[in-house]
Amino acid sequence: MLPQFKIDDVIKTAILEDINYIDTTTDLMIPADARTTARFMAKAEGVVCGLEIALRVFQLLDATFTARILMPEGSQVKPGDIIAELEGSTRFLLKGERTALNLLQHLSGIASATNRAVKIVEGTNASITDTRKTLPGLRAMQKYAVTVGGGKNHRFNLSDGAMLKDNHIDAAGGIPQAVATVREKLGHMVKLEVETRNLEEVRQALDAGADVIMLDNMDCPTMKAAVELVSGRALLEASGGITDETLRAVAETGVDIISIGALTHSVKALDISMKIQ
Amino acid sequence: MLPQFKIDDVIKTAILEDINYIDTTTDLMIPADARTTARFMAKAEGVVCGLEIALRVFQLLDATFTARILMPEGSQVKPGDIIAELEGSTRFLLKGERTALNLLQHLSGIASATNRAVKIVEGTNASITDTRKTLPGLRAMQKYAVTVGGGKNHRFNLSDGAMLKDNHIDAAGGIPQAVATVREKLGHMVKLEVETRNLEEVRQALDAGADVIMLDNMDCPTMKAAVELVSGRALLEASGGITDETLRAVAETGVDIISIGALTHSVKALDISMKIQ
Amino acid sequence: MLPQFKIDDVIKTAILEDINYIDTTTDLMIPADARTTARFMAKAEGVVCGLEIALRVFQLLDATFTARILMPEGSQVKPGDIIAELEGSTRFLLKGERTALNLLQHLSGIASATNRAVKIVEGTNASITDTRKTLPGLRAMQKYAVTVGGGKNHRFNLSDGAMLKDNHIDAAGGIPQAVATVREKLGHMVKLEVETRNLEEVRQALDAGADVIMLDNMDCPTMKAAVELVSGRALLEASGGITDETLRAVAETGVDIISIGALTHSVKALDISMKIQ
Amino acid sequence: MLPQFKIDDVIKTAILEDINYIDTTTDLMIPADARTTARFMAKAEGVVCGLEIALRVFQLLDATFTARILMPEGSQVKPGDIIAELEGSTRFLLKGERTALNLLQHLSGIASATNRAVKIVEGTNASITDTRKTLPGLRAMQKYAVTVGGGKNHRFNLSDGAMLKDNHIDAAGGIPQAVATVREKLGHMVKLEVETRNLEEVRQALDAGADVIMLDNMDCPTMKAAVELVSGRALLEASGGITDETLRAVAETGVDIISIGALTHSVKALDISMKIQ
Amino acid sequence: MLPQFKIDDVIKTAILEDINYIDTTTDLMIPADARTTARFMAKAEGVVCGLEIALRVFQLLDATFTARILMPEGSQVKPGDIIAELEGSTRFLLKGERTALNLLQHLSGIASATNRAVKIVEGTNASITDTRKTLPGLRAMQKYAVTVGGGKNHRFNLSDGAMLKDNHIDAAGGIPQAVATVREKLGHMVKLEVETRNLEEVRQALDAGADVIMLDNMDCPTMKAAVELVSGRALLEASGGITDETLRAVAETGVDIISIGALTHSVKALDISMKIQ
Amino acid sequence: MLPQFKIDDVIKTAILEDINYIDTTTDLMIPADARTTARFMAKAEGVVCGLEIALRVFQLLDATFTARILMPEGSQVKPGDIIAELEGSTRFLLKGERTALNLLQHLSGIASATNRAVKIVEGTNASITDTRKTLPGLRAMQKYAVTVGGGKNHRFNLSDGAMLKDNHIDAAGGIPQAVATVREKLGHMVKLEVETRNLEEVRQALDAGADVIMLDNMDCPTMKAAVELVSGRALLEASGGITDETLRAVAETGVDIISIGALTHSVKALDISMKIQ
Repeated sequence: MLPQFKIDDVIKTAILEDINYIDTTTDLMIPADARTTARFMAKAEGVVCGLEIALRVFQLLDATFTARILMPEGSQVKPGDIIAELEGSTRFLLKGERTALNLLQHLSGIASATNRAVKIVEGTNASITDTRKTLPGLRAMQKYAVTVGGGKNHRFNLSDGAMLKDNHIDAAGGIPQAVATVREKLGHMVKLEVETRNLEEVRQALDAGADVIMLDNMDCPTMKAAVELVSGRALLEASGGITDETLRAVAETGVDIISIGALTHSVKALDISMKIQ
Repeated sequence: MLPQFKIDDVIKTAILEDINYIDTTTDLMIPADARTTARFMAKAEGVVCGLEIALRVFQLLDATFTARILMPEGSQVKPGDIIAELEGSTRFLLKGERTALNLLQHLSGIASATNRAVKIVEGTNASITDTRKTLPGLRAMQKYAVTVGGGKNHRFNLSDGAMLKDNHIDAAGGIPQAVATVREKLGHMVKLEVETRNLEEVRQALDAGADVIMLDNMDCPTMKAAVELVSGRALLEASGGITDETLRAVAETGVDIISIGALTHSVKALDISMKIQ
Repeated sequence: MLPQFKIDDVIKTAILEDINYIDTTTDLMIPADARTTARFMAKAEGVVCGLEIALRVFQLLDATFTARILMPEGSQVKPGDIIAELEGSTRFLLKGERTALNLLQHLSGIASATNRAVKIVEGTNASITDTRKTLPGLRAMQKYAVTVGGGKNHRFNLSDGAMLKDNHIDAAGGIPQAVATVREKLGHMVKLEVETRNLEEVRQALDAGADVIMLDNMDCPTMKAAVELVSGRALLEASGGITDETLRAVAETGVDIISIGALTHSVKALDISMKIQ
Repeated sequence: MLPQFKIDDVIKTAILEDINYIDTTTDLMIPADARTTARFMAKAEGVVCGLEIALRVFQLLDATFTARILMPEGSQVKPGDIIAELEGSTRFLLKGERTALNLLQHLSGIASATNRAVKIVEGTNASITDTRKTLPGLRAMQKYAVTVGGGKNHRFNLSDGAMLKDNHIDAAGGIPQAVATVREKLGHMVKLEVETRNLEEVRQALDAGADVIMLDNMDCPTMKAAVELVSGRALLEASGGITDETLRAVAETGVDIISIGALTHSVKALDISMKIQ
Repeated sequence: MLPQFKIDDVIKTAILEDINYIDTTTDLMIPADARTTARFMAKAEGVVCGLEIALRVFQLLDATFTARILMPEGSQVKPGDIIAELEGSTRFLLKGERTALNLLQHLSGIASATNRAVKIVEGTNASITDTRKTLPGLRAMQKYAVTVGGGKNHRFNLSDGAMLKDNHIDAAGGIPQAVATVREKLGHMVKLEVETRNLEEVRQALDAGADVIMLDNMDCPTMKAAVELVSGRALLEASGGITDETLRAVAETGVDIISIGALTHSVKALDISMKIQ
Repeated sequence: MLPQFKIDDVIKTAILEDINYIDTTTDLMIPADARTTARFMAKAEGVVCGLEIALRVFQLLDATFTARILMPEGSQVKPGDIIAELEGSTRFLLKGERTALNLLQHLSGIASATNRAVKIVEGTNASITDTRKTLPGLRAMQKYAVTVGGGKNHRFNLSDGAMLKDNHIDAAGGIPQAVATVREKLGHMVKLEVETRNLEEVRQALDAGADVIMLDNMDCPTMKAAVELVSGRALLEASGGITDETLRAVAETGVDIISIGALTHSVKALDISMKIQ
C-alpha cells in the first residue's frame, strides 16, 4: 500500500474538510480531559476494508488514542459484528467520527462488491480486476480495497502499462502498425494490451505480439471463440458492462481477466456505525 | 463554488494519479501535432454536473483546447444527447479522457440522484439536503453537485453549524443543559441543531431554543406529531435511512428538511462517454 | 482550535522563513549536545495566548524539548511574571526563539486587546466579536486568540454566514428582495445578517426576517432606538470605528454584539521575552 | 520582491481562508454575468504599499478583471485620495474585497510607519531597518513594505547573516573567542554582527573584527561614545525600544543603522476602503 | 513527459532556492523596464536536453519572455553552437539564468552520456536503459533525458514492475517458489524480472516463467551462454559496473538490454553558457 | 542544516517517486512481520555524508527501525568498511534501500570530491567553496555536503549576497557606478562581490569598496598580481574551470577563496552498497 505518510495526507485533507478550524459543538461543551470508549459496528454484510486508515484518523488527532481490532482487514462481517473497540479523548472521538466512517464505509463498500464478484467466478480461470474509473485523489486506496476483496489490480495509470484503444489503432493505420510503433520505444518492463472488437482484431493483436488482448463488449460465444483462437499465447481480458448477473457466464468463457469499472466508480458504502459507550 | 485554483488542485491531483510521468501508449505513437475533435455523449438519463470541471482537465493539459457546450450544467440529458464538442491536441484529449470522465460521471451521478429526490418531494414543504457523509477531498464538489440537482446544502463542516447529538447531550446531562452550555460560547452567526429520538426530546429541544431539530429515524406519524408540536417555532429535519421509496411519505409529514447521506456516500456514476471523431 | 497538524504547518512555514537552511551563528559555534534552560517572561500587562503554539515551535525542532507552564493560556500577566520554563538543546532553543516569540507576542496581543474590550462592556448585554479583517494565513489563530481574550467569533468566512451589505441590497433592489433571494437557496443551517444604515433599514431587515441586523456606523441614540424597535426579534450588531473610548457607551445602547476590526487588523504585540539561563 | 508565483501562494491561502468553498451571500444573489466598477480610497494619511498584491487578488479570481492605478506603490496618500479604479465581475469584486483590503491595509500600515521613521531621521547618518520580529508567513511581504516606506532590510533570516548575542558569547567564553569560532567556518559572503551592552564590549567586538556592532538598549551618550570609539571601522546599529519620540536623538548620536521591531510586529493598518460604484 | 504543471513545480522549487525573496544585485540596480537579448551557447560536444524546461524558467518569471529555438531537443551540439536566442526583461533574464542553466546542463549531460552509450552498441541487439539510481525529486526528468539520448526506460518505480533480487529469492526458498508466490497476486499488466548470478539461476528463472532475466555482474562468456540457453524465451538484461570501455563487448554477447546506473547517478553537466548581448 | 521536517520533505518526495503506491515485489511476497539486519558498506574510498538522511528514509517508513553508526558523518572510508548496521522490518529495508542509497551516494560523492580539493590546497591561504551550480531541490543538502567535506559555502542564493557580474556593470556604466548604485539600497548585513576580468577591473572594484573581488578565469600570474595589488583590503576569489590538476597552483597565488562549480553540478556518486544479512 501507499507509504503511511501519503495515507496521512489523504486523511488530513479529509479532516480539514470536516473540522476546518473548530468543532463548534464539541469544543464548546465536551471537557478537554473527558475520555470514553466507542465501537465500530457492522450494520450490513460485507468485507471490512480501511480499518487501519479509519483508526489512523483518531491517531492523527489524539496521541493517546488506542484501539483493539476484533475483525481485521479483509474479515467478512454481518450486522451486529463489532469490528473494533476504540478508547480515547471524547473530544477527538467525536471530531474524527465522520471522517473515519466515511473512509471505512467507502473502502469496505469496494472490498465487499469485489468479493461478491470474486465468489461468483470461483472455480473458473478468471480473475476480477479494477479499472482506471476511480475517484479523484482516491485511486490508490480504491485499488487497495479491490485487493482486500480478493481482486487484482489492472494498470495503475497511463505510465505503467500500454493499452492500444481504437483511437490509437486508427491513428497508426491498424493493429500491426500500432503495436510495432509502440514496441519500438516501449521499455522492456511494460506490457502492451490491445483492445479488440471482434475475432479478426483478436487475431491481428495476437499476431502482432500483444501481451494482453482486451475483448471489448463482446458476447459470450465470441469470447469463447477468442479463448480458443488465442489458446494461451496471450492473456484475454473481458471488459464492458459486466454485472453480477452476467459475470458467471463471462467467466465460463475461459477468459483470464474480467475488469469491472463499477467496483470503483459506483460504490455503495458498507453500513458501519460508531457508537460511543 | 470553490475558487478556480482550488478546483484546479483537485484536477491536478487526479491527472497526476492517472498520468504519473508519461502516457506510454499515447506519447509513444500519437504525433505531437495531431489534432482531433471529440464529444461527450450521455448514455443514460440524468442531470449534467461538473461539465466545466471536466473541460478544465483538458485546458490544464493543453492551452489550445476549446469546447462548445451543448447541454450546460444542470441540463437533463437522455441517452444519445451530445453534451459538449471538444477540439484540441489528440495527445491531450487521449491523456485527459479518463480523468475528465471520472469527474463528470461522479458529479452528474450525484446531481441526478438529488434531482430524482427533489422531484419526488415536489409540492411539499420539504427541501432535500446532503450530509457530511462525503468522500475524502471531494466534499465541496459533491455538495456543489447536490445544489445543481436542486438540493440544498446542510452544514459544510463542524465549524459552521452546531449539532448536539446524543453523546453531547448525555455528556451535558440533558438537552436543556447541553443547549445552554453551547449557546454561552457560540458565535451569533452559528445555528444550533439538536438531534432528537422522540417527541419528548423534540419538546425539550424546542423549549431550549434550538434553531433546528433533527428527527432521527422516526416513523412518519411521529414526525407528523413533531410538526404539529413545533408548529413553525423551529425548523424540522428528517434524517435516517430515507430512500426513494419512503421519501414522499416523509415529505408529506410536513418536515422542512430531509437529509440523505446516500446522495454523496453511495454515488452511482452517470454513464457518459467520450468519443474521438 | 485547528487540528494540531494544521497549526504545525503554520509553525513550519514560520520556522523555514527564519532558519532557511542553517543558523550561521548557532550551528557554527554551539556544540550539538549543549543543553540549557530558558524562560518566557512577561514584560507588559496582558493575557497569555498562543503558549502551546510557541512551545510547539521547539518541539518541532527538538524531540528532547520539555517545558513547564506556569501561567497557562488565558492567564493575566504583569511585567516580571514567568510564563513558562523551558529545557532543551541550546541550539534549538536559540534557533526557535524568534519564531516562538513572534507567535506568542502576536496572539497574546490580540487576547489582551480583546480582554480589555470585554472588561469595558462587563455588565451590559453586549458580546465582543472579531471580524474578517485578519492577516493572511493567520485567521484561525487570530480568531482563537479573540476567544482566549473572552470575545466571541463572528463568521469565519464567506461560506458560513450570509451577510447582505449595501452592494448586495442595491443589486437586488432593496432589503426585502435581497433577503428573499438569498433565503430561497440558503442552507437551513446558515444565518442571515443584514447591514443597515438607519432605522428605516433596520425595520425593513426585521420585517424581511433577518437573523442578525448590523447597525453600521450609527450613533448611540440611533442604536438605542434600534434596540427598542427590534426588541429581541433579531440580534443587533454594532459595527464601525468603535474604540476603547466609545465602547462602553455603545454597549449601553443594549446591542447584542459589538464587532471590532482592530482586534485583528491592528495588533500591538504583547512584550514577552525569552531569557536563556 | 518574491517571485510572483510565491506571492500568489500567500494570496491563495488568504482567499481560501475567506471564501472556503462558497460565498453564501454573493453566489446566491448576484448574477454570474453582472459587472461593476469600484475604487480603493484612502481614509487616512500614509504610504500606499501592496497595491499590486491587492489587485492580484482579483486577477486570481477573475480573468476579466482590470484596474487603473492612480497612486502607485510608494505614493503618499491623504483621506479621500482614489488609489485605483477597478472593473470586473461583481461577484468576484465582492468576494475578493476583504482579502485585498486586508493585504493592502497591512502593508500600507508598515510602509507608513517606516516612512514616518525615515523622515524623523532625515539629514542624519542613520538608516532605518526592520528586524526578524515579523508575522508567520508574511516576512517577505513585510520586509518589502519596509523598503517601500524608505527603510532598509536587516538580515532576512538566520542563514544570511551571523549575529552573536549574549548567549552565544557566554557559550564561547567571551567576544574574542566567539568571533574567532564563527569566523573559522563562516562563508566569506556572510557578515558578522556582535551584540554589545557597553563600551567595553564594543571595543572587544571591534578588536575581534566584527563587521557590524549592535548597541543594545544603550543610552544616547553611550552610543555617541561608541560612534567615536569605532570611528568608521565597523557599522554601528542602535536597537531596543526606540520609539518615534526617541528616534531623532538616537539618530543624532551618529549610529549607522536604527532597527525597529515595531515596524513589523505591531502594525497599525492604514485605513483604506473599497467602494463599489 | 510529466504534465507541464508538474514540471513547473520542480522549476518553482529551483527558482525559490535561488531567489528566495529578492535578487539583491539585480533588483537594486537594473531598471524594471530594461529589456535585453541573450543566447544559450554550447561550450562542449553533446546532446541538447531540457531546453523547453530551461526556457520555462523565464516564462514563469516573465510573461513577456520569448525565445527562438535553433537547436531543438535532441540536437547534437558542438562548442560555439547557438542553441536558442532569448528576449525579455533584463531583470528576469538575470534572475533566471542560473536556474535555467542548472536544469539544461544536467539534463543535457544525461542525454549526452546516454547517446554515447547508444552509439557504442549500435548494430547489436542491445538497448541502453537507465535504472532507479536517480536523484531525489528528479527521476522523471532524468529518465526523460535518457530517452532523448536514445535510451529506453527501465521500470520507473517499485510499483510498475516486479523484480526478484537475491533477498526476495532467499526469503521464498528459491527462484521457483519466489516467482510462484509473486505471480499469484501480481496484476496481469506487470512484468516480472528475476536477478541471476549464474547459469543455473538463469535456467531456473526461465523455467519459472520470468518475463525478464537480469544477468548480474556476469562476465561476457557467461552472458553469451545465457543468451544461447534462453534463446528468445525471455528478455535478458546485463547489469553491473558496465562502462563505456566494456559496453561494446557486453552488447555483442547478444543480451537484449544493458542497464547503466551511472547515466543518472553520476552525471557530468554539459557545459552550456548564457550570454547577455 | 535544514530543519528535520524540511529534510523529511525531500526524503518523502524521493520515496514516493520510488514506491508510488506499492512495491509489487516485496509487498506480494515478504511477510509483513519478517525482520532482518543489513549493512551499509563502502566500495570505494571517500568521505561519508548524508548518513543520517539515509537512515531517516527507513525511519519514515518503519517506526521500529534502528541503526548503529560505525563510521559517522565525515569519516574517511575505504572499500570494505562497514558504515552502519541496520535492523528492521524486511519489507521496509527492501523498500527504502534504493532511496537511501541514492541520497547517501550522492552526498558522499560531493563530500569526497570537496575533501580531495581541500587536501590539495592544504597549507595555503585558500578555502574551497561551492557555487550556485546545484541541482533543483537539492541545494541545501548539496551545500551541506560541501561543508562535511571541509569546504565552505558561497552565498546560498541571490538574496543573501550581492554579486556584480559584467552584465550588471555594463548596465550601470562601469564598476564604480554599479557598486555605488547597489550600496545605496543594500542592507547593511549583505556583502558585495564584484566580478573582474583583469587587473584594471580589480583596481576599480577595490577602489569602489567591494567586500569580495572575483578573479574570473584569470591565469595564475595575473591572480598573483591581484593578490599583491589588493594586499588584504578585500577578499579575493578565484573562479572558472579550476580542476584537481590546476588547483594547487591557483591556491599558491595567495587568493582567499577558490570556488568550484563541479563540486555540485557534476557529482560522481560514491559507491556504497547495502547488504541484507
